[in-house]
Amino acid sequence: MTQEIISYETLRPLLNPKAIAVLGASENKYKIGHLQIQALIDGNFQGEIIPIHPSASEIAGLKSYPSLAAVPGDIDLVIFCVSFNQIKSGLIACAEKNVKSAIIFASGFSETGVEGQKLQQELAQYAKEHGIRIVGPNCVGLVNTSNGLIGTFSPAILTVPMDGKKGVGYVSQSGAFGVLTYMAAAQQGVSFNYFVSTGNEMDASFEDFIEYMVHDDETSIISGYLEGTKKPEKLKVLAKQALNKKKPILLMKTGRSDAGSRAAASHTGALAGSDIIYDAFFKQNGIVRVEDFEDIIAFSKLFNAEKLPTGKNTVIITSSGGRGINEADRCESYGLNIVELSEETKVEIRKTLPSYASVSNPIDLTAAASVTNPEFYLEPLKALVNDPDVDNIIFTDFPFNWDENTPMLQEFVAVAKASNKVIGLFPFPLDGLTFPKATDTLVANDIAVISGTLNPVRALSKLVQYSLYVKENEQVSDVASDYGAAPIEDLLQPGSTLSESEASEVLDRYGIPTTKRAIAKEAEEAVEMAKTIGFPVVLKIDSPHIPHKTEADAIRLNVSSEEDVRKAFEEVMSNAKNYNPTAKLNGVSVQEMLPNGVEIIVGAHNDETFGPVIMAGLGGVFVEVFKDIAFKVAPLTRKDAIDLLEELQGKAILDGARGKAPVDKEAIIDVLLKVSNLMNDNKETIKELDINPLIVYENGIKAADAMIVVQEKVAEIQVVGG
Amino acid sequence: MTQEIISYETLRPLLNPKAIAVLGASENKYKIGHLQIQALIDGNFQGEIIPIHPSASEIAGLKSYPSLAAVPGDIDLVIFCVSFNQIKSGLIACAEKNVKSAIIFASGFSETGVEGQKLQQELAQYAKEHGIRIVGPNCVGLVNTSNGLIGTFSPAILTVPMDGKKGVGYVSQSGAFGVLTYMAAAQQGVSFNYFVSTGNEMDASFEDFIEYMVHDDETSIISGYLEGTKKPEKLKVLAKQALNKKKPILLMKTGRSDAGSRAAASHTGALAGSDIIYDAFFKQNGIVRVEDFEDIIAFSKLFNAEKLPTGKNTVIITSSGGRGINEADRCESYGLNIVELSEETKVEIRKTLPSYASVSNPIDLTAAASVTNPEFYLEPLKALVNDPDVDNIIFTDFPFNWDENTPMLQEFVAVAKASNKVIGLFPFPLDGLTFPKATDTLVANDIAVISGTLNPVRALSKLVQYSLYVKENEQVSDVASDYGAAPIEDLLQPGSTLSESEASEVLDRYGIPTTKRAIAKEAEEAVEMAKTIGFPVVLKIDSPHIPHKTEADAIRLNVSSEEDVRKAFEEVMSNAKNYNPTAKLNGVSVQEMLPNGVEIIVGAHNDETFGPVIMAGLGGVFVEVFKDIAFKVAPLTRKDAIDLLEELQGKAILDGARGKAPVDKEAIIDVLLKVSNLMNDNKETIKELDINPLIVYENGIKAADAMIVVQEKVAEIQVVGG
Repeated sequence: MTQEIISYETLRPLLNPKAIAVLGASENKYKIGHLQIQALIDGNFQGEIIPIHPSASEIAGLKSYPSLAAVPGDIDLVIFCVSFNQIKSGLIACAEKNVKSAIIFASGFSETGVEGQKLQQELAQYAKEHGIRIVGPNCVGLVNTSNGLIGTFSPAILTVPMDGKKGVGYVSQSGAFGVLTYMAAAQQGVSFNYFVSTGNEMDASFEDFIEYMVHDDETSIISGYLEGTKKPEKLKVLAKQALNKKKPILLMKTGRSDAGSRAAASHTGALAGSDIIYDAFFKQNGIVRVEDFEDIIAFSKLFNAEKLPTGKNTVIITSSGGRGINEADRCESYGLNIVELSEETKVEIRKTLPSYASVSNPIDLTAAASVTNPEFYLEPLKALVNDPDVDNIIFTDFPFNWDENTPMLQEFVAVAKASNKVIGLFPFPLDGLTFPKATDTLVANDIAVISGTLNPVRALSKLVQYSLYVKENEQVSDVASDYGAAPIEDLLQPGSTLSESEASEVLDRYGIPTTKRAIAKEAEEAVEMAKTIGFPVVLKIDSPHIPHKTEADAIRLNVSSEEDVRKAFEEVMSNAKNYNPTAKLNGVSVQEMLPNGVEIIVGAHNDETFGPVIMAGLGGVFVEVFKDIAFKVAPLTRKDAIDLLEELQGKAILDGARGKAPVDKEAIIDVLLKVSNLMNDNKETIKELDINPLIVYENGIKAADAMIVVQEKVAEIQVVGG
Repeated sequence: MTQEIISYETLRPLLNPKAIAVLGASENKYKIGHLQIQALIDGNFQGEIIPIHPSASEIAGLKSYPSLAAVPGDIDLVIFCVSFNQIKSGLIACAEKNVKSAIIFASGFSETGVEGQKLQQELAQYAKEHGIRIVGPNCVGLVNTSNGLIGTFSPAILTVPMDGKKGVGYVSQSGAFGVLTYMAAAQQGVSFNYFVSTGNEMDASFEDFIEYMVHDDETSIISGYLEGTKKPEKLKVLAKQALNKKKPILLMKTGRSDAGSRAAASHTGALAGSDIIYDAFFKQNGIVRVEDFEDIIAFSKLFNAEKLPTGKNTVIITSSGGRGINEADRCESYGLNIVELSEETKVEIRKTLPSYASVSNPIDLTAAASVTNPEFYLEPLKALVNDPDVDNIIFTDFPFNWDENTPMLQEFVAVAKASNKVIGLFPFPLDGLTFPKATDTLVANDIAVISGTLNPVRALSKLVQYSLYVKENEQVSDVASDYGAAPIEDLLQPGSTLSESEASEVLDRYGIPTTKRAIAKEAEEAVEMAKTIGFPVVLKIDSPHIPHKTEADAIRLNVSSEEDVRKAFEEVMSNAKNYNPTAKLNGVSVQEMLPNGVEIIVGAHNDETFGPVIMAGLGGVFVEVFKDIAFKVAPLTRKDAIDLLEELQGKAILDGARGKAPVDKEAIIDVLLKVSNLMNDNKETIKELDINPLIVYENGIKAADAMIVVQEKVAEIQVVGG
């Protein structure tokens, strides 16, 4: 479980080099060895650019050297504009010259199969030994707009402006999608200060660059395109550090559709797709999951660490009823609340608007506002900034001709700046036609102006979510401490599925309440046990090879007499034998018959990426038909456990729907935390666990059935974040 | 319920006038009386333009007349560029001149309150008597691009191209939103052939223009922005006619957030928001509900009546893995299926692509396709068009330099044209940078090229939905014919809530199975009845004033002996009296105790807009906590009834989840159709109805409880579509 600690400072030469050598520099203007040099020149790189060419004395007007060794001064970064088969020799030359970092574009490595993978590992090992940090291979490089480092051959990057004003860093696991996002952002007026395409991540990983940006004072927003993390534990730590600094991390995680439920014995295994676990992980750690590239751009425009939304109550101000309703629909569909204004505020607004205007939210100033009465845009704002129930104010349009010299605009800006509300103008997308003259003034005064093409309403809802993460981060909710569990190693036979009684014993040792039970080998023994436990009882086959007892018809509920116990014993045994003649039968488990309560399911499985993951749901038909379940990555904090229940669609059932008393939620939370401990303590051995049903009462809780699957071989387990 | 039949032909002079007079023509270039004339001139109106001005002899170079009466020839259309207080006299002049239609921009009518409403009604009546069709007032007018009729003063309209090539008609209940949509469409290369802003709909309504377009051969797609229909029955008829002609109707209905559940005694009333009923109505009638304006544009680009999607199986072809995954996520989120390709097709594609390309869907041609190997774009297409499991093919990018002379493009187009698949190129939105040179050639050959800003994937999913509507329209599913119901008028006391026994009697007469029951006034009578019905029985208070019997503790289940019946009778009576001392008590209803089955709820209410609406859901916690319900507007077809059950999230419960036998769905469908008949026959009297629970078994069904609310006064009922 140890992760290597290499300081993010070692990435500095990659992103802030003083001298760059270009290996494979070319005089041919169409080769990347030339394009790359030209890009550095055109980007006004603030350092030395050194072409390396076997024979040329000058390339693109710069003095060229025949080899790295021939360069007189130090080299921080080497950009490899050479093909696949020249990488190794290049790295050796780097090591000899004591170069600190490299960008490798070439493909032909791990993405091509086993051979490429082997070569890549070999080179990575070599680079590590010689202290060379590498981005790539199979990437499009990186950009740092603050020093003009265009470390990419993609000519597209240079067609857009290069001023990373807002400090938005962007890391992408897809080169092409990253470049497109970078360009779209720049076209929309957001120039990322860093752009990194991570490629095969042979050395520096997605998470490493996030780490660099968390510690970089130039960066105020961290964003990225993620296909999959290999270092979830590192990402978790970084997310916490970023939250403490109020530096949002926005990740677009693709592959939502990759559900592919795995063949698994437990409910939990079958229900957990990889995407749903990412979702849980992001929520638990305060990472904003964005839907698409527009969200990163629009969020960046809206974001101001000093003025985060105080809530989701939103007011819309429009000069068109239709636009107002449309925007209100959008807000509600993304979870914002179109707040009903107080009478006081309405009266205040009404004073300044004509009778035909609507002072209900959405506030409709009518066409008069755009044609003859621009003051209509100013007056309601004055009332709204004083209303504590209003968090966010959206204008759908704005006086077209106001400019920085217009007194009303000056007043508008002053009122907006003095308020703690998030205020934005979200014009209808018409190729610039709908941006007012005052756009620059508004933006300069923290009133975001965002075209409708960027889905600014969705971005606002993400900002509200982020604001909530920041608030929650200020409240402590630690992982549950030791529950004094007894050792269970003796019960965990590798590769086995535990019988119910064995699984229940595991739960017992972790302090999770289970039913009174005993295993009978003979009918008469079962009768004695039933008398001890007290009638009515349940009889079930106990066998590691028959996990689905109902299917085998090897379970009898509500057995009320000695005679019935004898009969049930024989039936259960004989049905089990018929169902699976080779199954090992431990006997018949005689258990107390639990009274009716609310059935819960609690499950867990060891996820390939995230390690132990805990699931909660309402049992029976709710889990099977409605798939009403929620997931969290272990170890759970108390808040995680509470959220697991809060996220259930049917949570009202726990609160006592239809006149029933509320159930003992604390008892469920207690079980969830204990299961989290159990899974976390045994992540190298327990593969899957189901408690189904877990029956919860007004007071108390009991696991009525349980199943545990143990890992095949301990040697083969997945080390998380390794 | 009769709707006036005025032929859509009477709208022809509005949209296809030969001579237009402009009332309020002005020499002042900034007045709308001038702007309007200039717009007609600039639009190259294909008829006569006649300014009306008290003194000028010429305006904008056109001969002017002092009055309508002074004009020598016929006038088809008068455009009112005059204010509110001159409308009446203008209409009188129109009548005297026998003018057939008018456009009225002025506001100040029904939108301002009671006075304006009165005036508007008066003018509407006058216009009707004199056969003048009117659009407006309080509108921005209309446009017919085929004859250059720019019947609007909005200068914005003229800033965009005026060629309605694809025959897209657009009708809007919001002027501003309509103009913005019109402009956005034109900017994206879709010029609507008709644009109509309907304003207050004093005469010609939203539905009237839809009707005109249904019958207009120039129009192949009908679209609109709708806030609310006043003529749902007309819209239903038009939807059917349009489906028969394969002419899609796309409506953007706003006000989704206007949930505002009404205070209502029944479940159904409380659960039905107005928006959910619109949704049901659109689905039932094959109207495509679009989410936003982009859908209209993108759908119009995709639509080809001769090549509708054969299904939702979609293949993505990309040169960037990231873009491919991203587009796959989008497809699945909008209900398209990223189909797993057959081995045969994969082998076929593999033959022409290098080993590093991915032949799984999404097919990743890799960057080589865009840089050095454009033929990669052609070859997979050849294999895909032959795969019957593939319905739609999306390219995320395309060879940038192919043009109409490139043989590979010619072959590409030929293969695409010969296939029955929907094929589109959805480039990443980068201000034109991502549109290939061949764009026009592709579009001319029915390969839609749609920028990502227009959400083309969502539009494709709408097209798939439309294709399904067309298919369903070819199958007949008539409204249930007469079920031989007995008259029920004697039971429907105006303003009353029927007691359970009265409501059950209503159901009986409509052939809906109810429990065996009888009303007992005395305990001994109850005992006799229980003996006749057979033990166990249920005792419930029967009172029109105690609809919530559980709350009153006036219900006893599973009463098994004579002694228990006596006791239950006394308890029920005394609890009912305590609960509501003034309630009229009919007695205690003694009923058979139904065995356990699956609980359903069937409800109905008389919707303000749509009249009787039927609801179905799973009972108990499913309706109360999960809100798992569906609605259809009555009268139901058999298909509607089936869909009501199909749309339930928990429908698997009816099919026998968790090893249980499936229930008698036919019996539920039968009840739904009978309730539909009941509500439809009595829409002027029955306000709300609940059957809750309706218990359904493997064979058979029974209503265990029922409630009916009768309209307050018959005179005040809402006449639908009047």
